[in-house]
Amino acid sequence: MIIQMARRAERMSPSIIREILKVTERPGIISLAGGLPSPDTFPIEAMRMATERVLRDQPREALQYAASEGFGPLRDWVADHLQTHGLQADASQIIITTGSQQGLDLVGKVLIDAGSPVAIEAPTYLGALQAFAPYEPEIVTVPCDDDGPLPAQLDVAKGARFLYVLPNFQNPSGRCVSAHRRVQLLQAAQDIGLPIVEDNPYGDLWFDTAPPPPLASHWPEGTVYLGSFSKVLAPGLRLGYVVAPKALIPKLLQAKQAADLHTPGFNQRIVHEVIRDGFLRDHVPAIRARYKAHRDAMRAALERHMPPGCRWNAPVGGMFFWVEGPPSLDAVALLPKAVEHGVAFVPGAAFYADHPRLNTLRLSFVTVPPAQIERGIELLAQALKETI
Amino acid sequence: MIIQMARRAERMSPSIIREILKVTERPGIISLAGGLPSPDTFPIEAMRMATERVLRDQPREALQYAASEGFGPLRDWVADHLQTHGLQADASQIIITTGSQQGLDLVGKVLIDAGSPVAIEAPTYLGALQAFAPYEPEIVTVPCDDDGPLPAQLDVAKGARFLYVLPNFQNPSGRCVSAHRRVQLLQAAQDIGLPIVEDNPYGDLWFDTAPPPPLASHWPEGTVYLGSFSKVLAPGLRLGYVVAPKALIPKLLQAKQAADLHTPGFNQRIVHEVIRDGFLRDHVPAIRARYKAHRDAMRAALERHMPPGCRWNAPVGGMFFWVEGPPSLDAVALLPKAVEHGVAFVPGAAFYADHPRLNTLRLSFVTVPPAQIERGIELLAQALKETI
Repeated sequence: MIIQMARRAERMSPSIIREILKVTERPGIISLAGGLPSPDTFPIEAMRMATERVLRDQPREALQYAASEGFGPLRDWVADHLQTHGLQADASQIIITTGSQQGLDLVGKVLIDAGSPVAIEAPTYLGALQAFAPYEPEIVTVPCDDDGPLPAQLDVAKGARFLYVLPNFQNPSGRCVSAHRRVQLLQAAQDIGLPIVEDNPYGDLWFDTAPPPPLASHWPEGTVYLGSFSKVLAPGLRLGYVVAPKALIPKLLQAKQAADLHTPGFNQRIVHEVIRDGFLRDHVPAIRARYKAHRDAMRAALERHMPPGCRWNAPVGGMFFWVEGPPSLDAVALLPKAVEHGVAFVPGAAFYADHPRLNTLRLSFVTVPPAQIERGIELLAQALKETI
Repeated sequence: MIIQMARRAERMSPSIIREILKVTERPGIISLAGGLPSPDTFPIEAMRMATERVLRDQPREALQYAASEGFGPLRDWVADHLQTHGLQADASQIIITTGSQQGLDLVGKVLIDAGSPVAIEAPTYLGALQAFAPYEPEIVTVPCDDDGPLPAQLDVAKGARFLYVLPNFQNPSGRCVSAHRRVQLLQAAQDIGLPIVEDNPYGDLWFDTAPPPPLASHWPEGTVYLGSFSKVLAPGLRLGYVVAPKALIPKLLQAKQAADLHTPGFNQRIVHEVIRDGFLRDHVPAIRARYKAHRDAMRAALERHMPPGCRWNAPVGGMFFWVEGPPSLDAVALLPKAVEHGVAFVPGAAFYADHPRLNTLRLSFVTVPPAQIERGIELLAQALKETI
């Protein structure tokens, strides 16, 4: 018996990164490849107390079926939180999702027809490409520089269903789109009627100054905004949210019902219990300080060890360095050699829909301790020197 | 700014049942409309202890990103559990899903092309129709009797991507397909090469004897099987699973990654901690005994109060009575009158893709206490007598 699959199944492929991680997560390898937040930042004691309270005070509600749009007080909290970031949204415009990955799936489901163009940055978050792929878009890459998509070249995206952008400390490039570029980009998008899907999982992880206000704050009626609790609390809870113009909410909500009825109410109530009284006011700065120290360690190690012909920008937030080797470098071919030396990374080619820049590498700096970062970069530099 | 939506968005509609529930969940209304398990069955103390252990012994793992296929020990548990139901499946054929609703979404994503026929029972579980709708199938209804789909009429489903069946104590009809009918149905499906999607959320909730072995146990290579923890533990955790022929697993897994990366590892570890040492051996029989007493109360009340011309089969498991009124009855028109009397139900018409039987009603018997069931049926009978 051979079961016939849908045409879209051909468009779906395993995450290259997950495949790489399988190879590289061997004992003894210093992995700069992961995209995981540091488990040292997980608020275990606060979770324990919150869970105890939820199971004591509201167990029947927490364990029962719940509203597809999400737990009311958590939606209210998100609305208040976004306001402090300059984004005015009513709680009725917010749907709690099973991680912000689900927000990407719902956006794809509601906005993409087979064959319709969808515009992305280069490089871009691979998980978004995976979320959109089953809806069979034609991917259009908008040319980018170190400050993000180039407004003057946005015409290539004319007629696209939306432009997918990750403006704050992007995964993988670490770049943060400047305030000036945001204004230019929005103007260009409005000129051609191009909606924006703005993904912001890392925005709170800034090191010195907060990033500029979100694109959605300037153009709420043209922007779908995705947020997440994965990087400020813990990803294993799978809690994110989507904020959308009112006209889209009914269809996003029906897509959400169809997808999993609702995000676990147990998790929503626990997280609300953790954060309701301002827990994040102290917790997030602690994550920032930790990640900044790691960023400094990696920057110092790169400066100390990397061979000439390599460049990088020290990220001002988030979790990733983006390293560009000499033009002749093939980072995919470099990876097995690096693993032999005892260090792993993700080749940048994984983050492009087309025309990958083969000489790029993504390095995560948040899970590995600073001393190991130093050693890992030293090993990577050795592998690089043997290759170029 | 008007954002253009995908064509499929037109096919998506709000859950009629959720709309009905909004109207009927007023204080003072006896609601026989809900599809919720009884919160009195939620194992709150076991959950509390399990959560404490997970956050003490494996907090970093439980709160970190995790494998898309699910938590290994939980997949092993599911494989063992299915074996006791006669279904041989390797853990590698099992993917943990965010509720079995997500299993339906993944099946739709991987198997349905726009315009491809998908066969269903009449009536059928509405959430499945909602899950499939975004993939734009042509729905084909297989004629059914009180024992499920009619094998002799399965030819209408020839060429369909699959037949969706809920053989045990179906939502909404309460029917349980007999062992004999299962064999006939499978033979007919094999004859025309029609894959089966078998949904089994209620199978453990039998009252006197266990239902016959699942369809998947007879034809594993042609059947995708969906299971759930929602009715034996608690739905607010959103934990289900899909068991599929090996050839489908890679694409289902990629669809799962794209949908939400993975089901919350926190919830998976808690549930595994609750059930690993045989907790369900005592817990599930307690649910059965409770639901059976409720079933008996509703049967007695129906016999006592219902006007002539109404018929029902007492379900031998699950959560629902299916009542058929006289041919002239329009249960949709009856609903507001019943609500005036103080009782709510779901009109059966909600559960058909086409040719709804307007004279049918679904009554849930598990959340309302027996005394209220008696009163609710009395009120329903009054509304019925005024109508017919």
